[in-house]
Amino acid sequence: MDSFVGEMKAVILSICPDAKIIDISHLVEKFDIRMGAFLLARATPYFPSGTVHVGVVDPGVGGERRAIVIETSRSLFVGPDNGLLIPAATRDGILHVYELTNHSLMRNEVSSTFHGRDIFAPAAAHLAAGTPPKECGPEISDYVKPEYGRSTINGTTANSEIFHVDSFGNLITSLPNADLARLNLKFGQKVRVVIGGKRLSARFVKTYSDLNRDEIGILVGSHGFLEVACRERNAAKRIGARRGNVVRVYGD
Amino acid sequence: MDSFVGEMKAVILSICPDAKIIDISHLVEKFDIRMGAFLLARATPYFPSGTVHVGVVDPGVGGERRAIVIETSRSLFVGPDNGLLIPAATRDGILHVYELTNHSLMRNEVSSTFHGRDIFAPAAAHLAAGTPPKECGPEISDYVKPEYGRSTINGTTANSEIFHVDSFGNLITSLPNADLARLNLKFGQKVRVVIGGKRLSARFVKTYSDLNRDEIGILVGSHGFLEVACRERNAAKRIGARRGNVVRVYGD
Amino acid sequence: MDSFVGEMKAVILSICPDAKIIDISHLVEKFDIRMGAFLLARATPYFPSGTVHVGVVDPGVGGERRAIVIETSRSLFVGPDNGLLIPAATRDGILHVYELTNHSLMRNEVSSTFHGRDIFAPAAAHLAAGTPPKECGPEISDYVKPEYGRSTINGTTANSEIFHVDSFGNLITSLPNADLARLNLKFGQKVRVVIGGKRLSARFVKTYSDLNRDEIGILVGSHGFLEVACRERNAAKRIGARRGNVVRVYGD
Repeated sequence: MDSFVGEMKAVILSICPDAKIIDISHLVEKFDIRMGAFLLARATPYFPSGTVHVGVVDPGVGGERRAIVIETSRSLFVGPDNGLLIPAATRDGILHVYELTNHSLMRNEVSSTFHGRDIFAPAAAHLAAGTPPKECGPEISDYVKPEYGRSTINGTTANSEIFHVDSFGNLITSLPNADLARLNLKFGQKVRVVIGGKRLSARFVKTYSDLNRDEIGILVGSHGFLEVACRERNAAKRIGARRGNVVRVYGD
Repeated sequence: MDSFVGEMKAVILSICPDAKIIDISHLVEKFDIRMGAFLLARATPYFPSGTVHVGVVDPGVGGERRAIVIETSRSLFVGPDNGLLIPAATRDGILHVYELTNHSLMRNEVSSTFHGRDIFAPAAAHLAAGTPPKECGPEISDYVKPEYGRSTINGTTANSEIFHVDSFGNLITSLPNADLARLNLKFGQKVRVVIGGKRLSARFVKTYSDLNRDEIGILVGSHGFLEVACRERNAAKRIGARRGNVVRVYGD
Repeated sequence: MDSFVGEMKAVILSICPDAKIIDISHLVEKFDIRMGAFLLARATPYFPSGTVHVGVVDPGVGGERRAIVIETSRSLFVGPDNGLLIPAATRDGILHVYELTNHSLMRNEVSSTFHGRDIFAPAAAHLAAGTPPKECGPEISDYVKPEYGRSTINGTTANSEIFHVDSFGNLITSLPNADLARLNLKFGQKVRVVIGGKRLSARFVKTYSDLNRDEIGILVGSHGFLEVACRERNAAKRIGARRGNVVRVYGD
């Protein structure tokens, strides 16, 4: 119900009146950097080249954490140095990371509690209006590099974790399509899966409607990762699974 | 909390950078085609002529259901062939319905689970940028024609159903203003109403503030249909009514 | 889940196609004029000069309450004459208030239940497109002037109330920074606070991250008012406090 997002957009349009602003999500759980990082990384590939992305999940606001600007091969990212921006920027290919210290790119009065409005939004607007990224501050290499959602393949077993539960209740894992391909699964086959210690049999399908009503299946989601779904049902509730649970898929 | 909508908008602006995008609602219940159809039909008359509408309530994504483009006398509609678009397009006046098969209007990679981003959004953007609708694919006439929210008048009794419960708890029925007029109700009079088998007495009023606090009334809503309301209260909870309940209004 | 906001935006763009529309909040509690007034007053200082603000929290729609247009030193406000717009307009400096009576600035058909779409949105669009405010209707001075969120200083004690609970659970009081300064608090010091009759000891800090985990503190929020917060926790739940509770801060 808050006006935080509106205030950031107002600041952006005050500096760069021609900016076109798209909302990715404002329903990230409070302080959940990892959920924010997932949604940002998922969405950014669909944006035009030259987009400036602003991310604010910022429990450390006003403290020691730095503000950063990341230049990738096709975009700019502005936000806190807490890992939030890294998975998305890594997908693009990181070229330079700058600490955002140039006060002429911030609001005159910077509050201690809302850097989204007072630092990130104005800097993003100046970048969108043409300010070169290197004017933001000194280049750094010791930015926070998070380790979210690892996955490994051991023989014919893929180990991953639930990285995100979407609003349909689908379980999105950290197993990328490229790794899954090494298990040589065939569409329609039954696959042994262990989720958070629970053993399941799930059919490997192309899309939700290939499943029978109530049937649990696995598929490659529109984000390019293995997903566990239950047709027109909430798979998370059905299975009793949640984010962070280990997911094992057996290819034999 | 998902990034689905942001991804669709990003795709649209990548193809048609001058598009102005307005959100109608992203809170339609999952898989509830009928609620989506109501909201779309309610909102579209207020949009400028030439608008391209995109609707995605799409339980059959990736399966047999087709993608369609509808040309009406004043707008274009893009979405799944599952009935979602028909009530809105019918209000405008349907001229042509095309199956959307032209791959040059879609994203290069089409996922099996998110046609909103990969088929509907890019096609809508191309249409907004000037592509003629007939280039979308072959004209068809066997598109899905839903039968939502019928209403009838028998003598002095109007039969309808609750088509939608809005976020205030007002009950929106399928009885259009034109039919209601045949009952010759006068503002201020008490009217016998039966809702889901429950008998009520309700005053026919012009607007919510004509009611006393807690009083139940009937009125013509801003959408042009008969509505059951309770002043500054949730009528659905108060009456114990829900969508699909039969509503009878007695004119004598 | 409703289409109300989309309908208003559609009307605005039909009249003023170049309008840039920013949402402040659509999650104000139903009929809660005071919460709407707080959010509007909080957000408007960040908008560019020349912005037209539209506010709709409107329990009296269709009744006796008037529609008004307020001209301030830097903005225009359009909405119901029920107090909603006054705190924001007062922050700007009110120059003129007009009753909105000019039918040529409204939709042809004005419903009794949705003046947001039929009166406020079209008038705002005409104003954004260049119509002078004085063409809206006669100037008035007897508009509703609400008395929200008073605060007083008695000796070394500041008396205020909880004006708003934000979505993090932070308690925003009616005590402005300028008044708080008179208590001569030092960063880091423990302060006696009474909230809704409950005695607490809270540390006066600059920002959330100065607090220890779970610690309750007071600070000046990004809106310029005293705020009670609990680090990465919901202070409202933790303390058992709610809007309207009296807040006393002891400076000695």
